[in-house]
Parts: sequence; structure tokens; C-alpha cells
Amino acid sequence: MLVGISTFAFFLCVAKTVVGSPNFIIFFADDVGYGDFQSFGHPTQEKGPIDVMGDEGMRFTSWYSGDSICTPSRASLLTGRLPIRIGVVGPNRVFWQWDQGGLPKSEITIAEALQQQGYATGMVGKWHLGINEKVANDGGHLPMHHGFEYVGTNYPYGQNWKCDPKKFSTAEMSEKCFKYKNSTFVQQPTDMINSTFEMVEDAKDFIMRNKNQPFFLYMPFLQAHCTLFCSPGFCGSSRRGIYGDNINEMSWAVGEVLDTVKRHSIQENTLAIFISDNGPQLEMCVDGGSSGFLKDLVIGGKGSTWEGGIRMPAFAWWPGTIPAGEVNHEVVSTVDIYATLLELAGGNADEDDVTRDSKSISGVLRNESPSPHEFLFHYCSDRLMAVRYGEYKISYVTQMRTTDFTDFCYEGVPDDDRITNLRCYDDTVVSHDPPLIFNTDEDPAEEHPLNPARHGLMLSHVNEAVRRHKATIVPTRSVLGLKNAALQPCCNYPACVCNYEHPYESQQKSEL
Amino acid sequence: MLVGISTFAFFLCVAKTVVGSPNFIIFFADDVGYGDFQSFGHPTQEKGPIDVMGDEGMRFTSWYSGDSICTPSRASLLTGRLPIRIGVVGPNRVFWQWDQGGLPKSEITIAEALQQQGYATGMVGKWHLGINEKVANDGGHLPMHHGFEYVGTNYPYGQNWKCDPKKFSTAEMSEKCFKYKNSTFVQQPTDMINSTFEMVEDAKDFIMRNKNQPFFLYMPFLQAHCTLFCSPGFCGSSRRGIYGDNINEMSWAVGEVLDTVKRHSIQENTLAIFISDNGPQLEMCVDGGSSGFLKDLVIGGKGSTWEGGIRMPAFAWWPGTIPAGEVNHEVVSTVDIYATLLELAGGNADEDDVTRDSKSISGVLRNESPSPHEFLFHYCSDRLMAVRYGEYKISYVTQMRTTDFTDFCYEGVPDDDRITNLRCYDDTVVSHDPPLIFNTDEDPAEEHPLNPARHGLMLSHVNEAVRRHKATIVPTRSVLGLKNAALQPCCNYPACVCNYEHPYESQQKSEL
Repeated sequence: MLVGISTFAFFLCVAKTVVGSPNFIIFFADDVGYGDFQSFGHPTQEKGPIDVMGDEGMRFTSWYSGDSICTPSRASLLTGRLPIRIGVVGPNRVFWQWDQGGLPKSEITIAEALQQQGYATGMVGKWHLGINEKVANDGGHLPMHHGFEYVGTNYPYGQNWKCDPKKFSTAEMSEKCFKYKNSTFVQQPTDMINSTFEMVEDAKDFIMRNKNQPFFLYMPFLQAHCTLFCSPGFCGSSRRGIYGDNINEMSWAVGEVLDTVKRHSIQENTLAIFISDNGPQLEMCVDGGSSGFLKDLVIGGKGSTWEGGIRMPAFAWWPGTIPAGEVNHEVVSTVDIYATLLELAGGNADEDDVTRDSKSISGVLRNESPSPHEFLFHYCSDRLMAVRYGEYKISYVTQMRTTDFTDFCYEGVPDDDRITNLRCYDDTVVSHDPPLIFNTDEDPAEEHPLNPARHGLMLSHVNEAVRRHKATIVPTRSVLGLKNAALQPCCNYPACVCNYEHPYESQQKSEL
Repeated sequence: MLVGISTFAFFLCVAKTVVGSPNFIIFFADDVGYGDFQSFGHPTQEKGPIDVMGDEGMRFTSWYSGDSICTPSRASLLTGRLPIRIGVVGPNRVFWQWDQGGLPKSEITIAEALQQQGYATGMVGKWHLGINEKVANDGGHLPMHHGFEYVGTNYPYGQNWKCDPKKFSTAEMSEKCFKYKNSTFVQQPTDMINSTFEMVEDAKDFIMRNKNQPFFLYMPFLQAHCTLFCSPGFCGSSRRGIYGDNINEMSWAVGEVLDTVKRHSIQENTLAIFISDNGPQLEMCVDGGSSGFLKDLVIGGKGSTWEGGIRMPAFAWWPGTIPAGEVNHEVVSTVDIYATLLELAGGNADEDDVTRDSKSISGVLRNESPSPHEFLFHYCSDRLMAVRYGEYKISYVTQMRTTDFTDFCYEGVPDDDRITNLRCYDDTVVSHDPPLIFNTDEDPAEEHPLNPARHGLMLSHVNEAVRRHKATIVPTRSVLGLKNAALQPCCNYPACVCNYEHPYESQQKSEL
């Protein structure tokens, strides 16, 4: 294998003056909004290593997620395909911990594709693409079955509103709050304190062990999903409050990982990307994130296809290759990660017969090419809601404002775990015929709809693109909503081990 | 006079290690919002020299204006006093071009105070603090009567919705669109093309002539008030549209002035501050600015005491003294400019018997001191609306949303010159008892009011401060709304000269 890589690297040297297959690190935040970083304008969020990643690399203002909610967004990141092609659609919109469904094994993930190119692959953090398949401890949908040969601390369901020990009993927490180490069930309930430290230790360890071969590290964070937490050193670190503490803690972790890359002197051969999975859960009040300049009003966050639900804070870092300090306005998407990484690794996403939505943005990353997308299609579950075309956004269906902050934000504190925009079909959405048109460059907050009568030609062009796009969609059985209570992950199951001790914890104890 | 300055400078050397009395440049934008710069997070506004001023100097996230609208904001900047103390209050809220009122001559401006310290004083740009006093060409309220010995290109009324030659006839434009050179009436109507170039030439000239003595330059821009315009080289320069072109043009001008300072090697003895006069005129649709992260919804802009109306984008620059690249969250105000500049010049704002709201922020500028304000009082005309206290904002009265964008923004283009929040007393405002309380650090958009019952002690403390503050207000005759049609500035008046040619225009012609 190593011989093959070297030969290929030599070819690249001649053809593209890229030395070797670069390493890849994808940092993936949870429910962090377009407005949650200082470099995206938040008035009180502290500047952190993620912002510095933008100073040393590039910041993107039009990076879109593959979906507006966790599971389908993650599925599209790993496969380069819109969730509707994978069957990650349906009223539930995400996998539940007792579901028998998971990311279909027939899908090729970027981890699998990079393995074919000789990459070491690892992941640490939140999975949320399925757990068990047939029995409560088979872990049949876990990352090891999707191309990740190393899996560190793993929260296969992520974390949840019920993971807050200040609000819920141990019994209530147990159902949704548990931790794995690779495929080993290790803690239930888990309350996340120190989780960031564990993840960072795992990531450092993975990089150290693989620094001499190309590697792919996927690091999806628990921050800043609805149960906010802080590890020692980060509680009270933000002027913005506990949400800001969460951003600071995650940002520290990103800094630690990038510092590790620098310490091993492999930074000029390492591409790191930081993005969020979807918009902020605004219903969490001051414990939720911010859409910043984009439409807010509860409707402009997680779950919706208003810009705040799908436009992501995004940073790319590759010293010597990505120009430092640039702000890039090209329209790109999280689905592009598949084709981009594979191309940079020497592969080609077009070489199999899978229909993908992913296009390589390697030229965009170098600030040399425009967006490869003439159109970008935004879905809510299996319903096409909107299309981005150049600076225009055309919305055929939009979510409505169905409630008011004051209904559920007493003293700015949420009273429950709500997402007002989970539904895509009923009376909480509005169809527009003619569609709403916004100029996203001049009107990023979607406040001033343009007159469709003046944009007839453009609309015809987009409508025709929608027709062509829809013709490529092959009906696929939904893998969401297949509840099987017997699959609930549980420590009491005979084969389940609950006393695993993470090396980080052992080390801490030995230092006492 | 020069001997006096040298002696004083020597004293400063010993006491504060500041070499000489620094030069001051105050850049003052018109209706530019908290969200109108890239460094404050605007997604598509280009990075410009004003942002670079923040990189080389300091950016402020809690800098408040003295008022939410032009005339009173400018009056408070120049005098260090809230408009209610000066009589710049009343339903009109601003001076009209035919008013017989102006900034009272009894007020001491910072220009006059600095003249006493041996400073050369100059201004170029928009005045809007009165024009004529008794007859149509006496210019009795112009800047020369308020301490500015040099006045370059001057728009004593600023510019106006009716200054757009694409929308209005010459006759319609004439009433409000005219230009002076110092106290000489030179053009009517004026359409502002090249005005930025003229202003920059004047500013460079003033600096060049005064580089060897301390100087104070006040440079209030025409950008980006409701008639948007662009000079050659800036039209189409912004991805954001014509509003972005205006920001780019103004930013270029700031860069030219700061480059001039550097070229004369006086940058380490020059403090430059850039702020806006008040929030954006959101009713101008995509031709209006942005409140960014602050409350929007039409009600959160110019004229209102929601944060978007009064919190300013602010930058301070003083190489070697102001630390580079810092973001400062301390609560400061435009009224502080008076005490700060006077202190740095060796004077003391407390040495006369004038009641001022101004406090020196020289320590804040060096990032060494907290805000000097325990409380900051926000008015609409003579009505106290809100108080900022630490991270809290307590609103006793707020403006209501009385209209909708869709009513007057066809294709994003405004149909008229509106400000929905001009009134402070009638049914367009709401009184709150108990008051609204927001935590501005955690909730900058004022979306989640806190429960007053939980903040009783704090409210008592603030209410007591309001009582003490109100006791310092001496009823003053309003100087606004005193219309005298005979004072309308007009080229046809016998003594009025309309053929002045600015040296910049002469130079352009000679180059052709």
C-alpha cells in the first residue's frame, strides 16, 4: 500500500506540485449558527482558535449544509449525496437511539473511499447515523461499519436535552445519554463533563500514530447542542454566557488538534475544515446559537430552509496552499467534501456509477476557481424547498413562524426541547407560486422579496433545472422512523460493558 | 502659543510618557449601522481601510451614540452633552435647512476647547447643526462660529432623499441639496459625485499644513445617508450593491487620510476614531444599512432606542498607543469624545461649570481601564427611554413596529424617505412598567426580556440613578423647529456665489 501511495505522490508532484496525499481533518459542530463566532460578527463571543483558523486560512460566507438537521446533514457530508438519495428522509428527520435503521451500508462514505486511496481513517465524537441493527448490542450501524478503522470516544446518538443532570434524574438521562469507546458501550448516563478533553486526547493520539501516512480524521463535536455543558477551565469563560463557554471549549479543542498537526510539522500537508451541521436551535433562547445576519425570528434556525437553517459558519485551513485571511463568497456545500477530499487524495468521485451531488471545491479552497455549482438544492426531508442560483435564492416553500419566543423563553431560559420547523408538509409551511426570490448578496436576511414578474427568464431557467434535478432522484425506502424498542442501547444487556476507563481519566487519576 | 504647547508637552513627557499633544481625527459616518462592515460580520461587504483601521487599532462592540438621529447626535459629539441639555430636542428632531435655530453659541464645542489648547481645528463634510441665523446668507450657525478655523467642502444640511438626480428635478433638488466651501455657498443643487474626492483633498491639505502642530480634524461623511451615490471607481465595487459601494467609497477616504498621516510620519502622535452618528435607516430597504446582530424589524434602526438605533460600529487607531487588533466590549459613548480629547490635549473638561455627560475614555482606548460609565442614558428627543447599566439594558419606553417592510419596499427599493421611529410620545411608542430588561451580552438582539421580579434590587439602583440624572437636567428652550422660510439657502440671493471651483476640479480639468 505505501509503495502505491508514494508512486501516486510522485505523479502529483509533477502534475499539480502537491506533495503527497494531504491529510484531512473535518471538524463538525452541532447546531452552531452562522452568527456564533466573533469572526462572523458576534458582539460578545470571544475570539478563539477557530477564528484564528480563519485568519491563517479562509472563511466562507456562502457554505451550505446538506440539510437543516443533524442526521441527514451528517449523511450528506459522509456520502456526498443529498439525504433524499439515501433514504434519510421522513417525518422523524433524525435517527432515534432505538431505531433499527442507520446509514445504509450500500452507501460509500468518504472514509471508505479514502481507505481505498491508502488513508488511515479515524473518527471521534458524535455519530448520529444509527446504532444497533438486529439486537441491542450489535452496533451494526456504528462508524466501524462505514470506513472508520479507528473510532475513539463516540456518542452514537450525540447528546440530548435529557443529558443535563441539573434537570433530569439518572433514570431519565439513561435513555438517550450514553457513551461508547469505538463499539464498546462504556457509560450510561453520561453527562459530558470532560468529553471534550477525551476527544482531544483521542484525536492527538490518532494523529501521532498516523502522522507518517495520509490520514482522515472526522471530529464531530457535541457542542453546542441543546444540553450546554462546560468542562473545567471553560465554565464562565465567556462574556456571552454558557453558550459562549461551549463555543470557547470547542474552539480550544480545534486549536489543540491544529497545534498537534503543527507540532508534527505536517501542517503544509494537512487540510482542515470546520463547519457546522445545521443552523442554531433558536428555540433554546439564550442557550441556543445565533443566525447572526440571517433571518432569525425562530423560523430562521435549525430545521428550516431559511438561510439561518442551512448557511454555515465555515473555515478552511491548509498553510501554504489556502491563502491566509481571505473571505470567500463562493457558493459551496458540505456535500462537496466527498469529491474534494477524494480528488486531493488522488481519486475521482465520478469513477463509480453513484449519483452524487458533490463537486470538488479544491480550486475554491485555493481561491482560484468560482463555485462549481450553478444550482444548489435545499430540501426539508424529501420536499424540495428552495434553490440557490448565483446570488439568488428561489424559495418554493418556506416554514412559517408558528410560535413566539415569549411562549417558551422565560428569563431567556428554554422550557423544553423544541424545534418549531421539524415538519415539511402540513400547515406550518407555506407554498409560494410564484416562488419567493431574494438577492442573498444584497439582502442576506431575506427581508425584501423581489418581484417574480421581473425575473421571469431566470425563474424559467431555475424551474427547468429543478425538473432536471428531480429526474435524477430515484425513490428510496426511508431508513428513518423504524423504531424497535428492543434495540435501545442499555448497560444491562448481558454483553454490554460499562466500566471502561478512558486513558485520559486514568492519567488524571495518576496525576492526583 | 507654540511656547505654551512645548512647555505643556514637556510636562506630559514626565507625567504620562505621552510625547506632545496628539493630533485628533474624528471620522463620522451618516446612518451607517452596527452591521455595515465586514469586521462587524456583514456577509458580503468588502473589507476596506476602515476594517484595517480596526486591525491596526481597536474595534468597539458597545460604543453608543449620543442620540439616534443626525442633529442631536452631532451636537452631543461636539459638546460632550446630551441633546436635552442643549435644547436640540422637539418633534422635528433635526434642523431643517430653513431653520433659524442652530447649535447654541453658548455651547463650548470640542473644537473651541482644543483651540484653547493650541490646536489647529478643521472640518470637512456634513454639518447639520444650523445654517443661517437672521438672513439667508449670514451663515450664522456654520462651523466657523463653533471653533473650526478651517472648513473645507461643507454640506451644511448634509444630503437628502431629494438629492438624487435620477429621481428628482433640478427644482426639487435645489431646496435641500447644496454645497458650501467654508461659509461660501458654491453649488445648488449638488449631486455629490466627486464629493468624497473633494473632501479627501481638503483633509489631506489640512493635515499637510498643520502636521507640525497639534491639529483636530472633524470629518463627517455624506455616506451612507438615504441618497446613495458613487464616485468614479466605486460604482459597482461591492458585491452588496450600491449601499456597499458607498461603504467602500467612504472606507477608501478613511484610508487616504490615514495614509496621509503615515506619509507625514505623525501616526504615533495621531488618534483617529471612526464612528457613525446613529443606526441605519432600515426603511431604505436594500438601500439602507444593517443593524447586524441587533434588533432589526424596521424598529431597530435610526430614530429608535433599540440597540440597532444607538449602538455604533466604532474603530480607534493610534499606532503605538492603542493595542492592535483588540476588540473592546466596554460601554462608551460618542459624548465621551469631548472629555477624552481634551484630557489628551492637556486640558480638563471638569474645569468649567458646564454639566457634561462626557467622561474620558483614554484608559479604555489603551485597553487599560474599564468603562467610566456606571450608567448610560438613552433619549428620544427629551424623553428618557432606556438606561444601559453594566451588561443590562433597562427600557422604560420602546418604539413599536408600526409598519411592514413590504408596505414600502418594492423589489427592495424604497418608495419614499421614511423613518418610522421619529416620534417619541404618541401611540407609536409603548411604556413599560416594570421596564423591559435585557442582558445585552447574552442577548444582543433584545429578544429575551428578563423577569423584572428577579431583578428588583438592580432596578431600584437604576431607578435611583435615573432620579439623580434627571435632577441634573435644566429645562432648556428647544432650538429645533424654528422655521423661517426667508432663511432658505439660495443661489439667487444677491450675496450668494455659485461659481466656486474646488481646486480638485481645477486639477482634474488641467489633467484632461
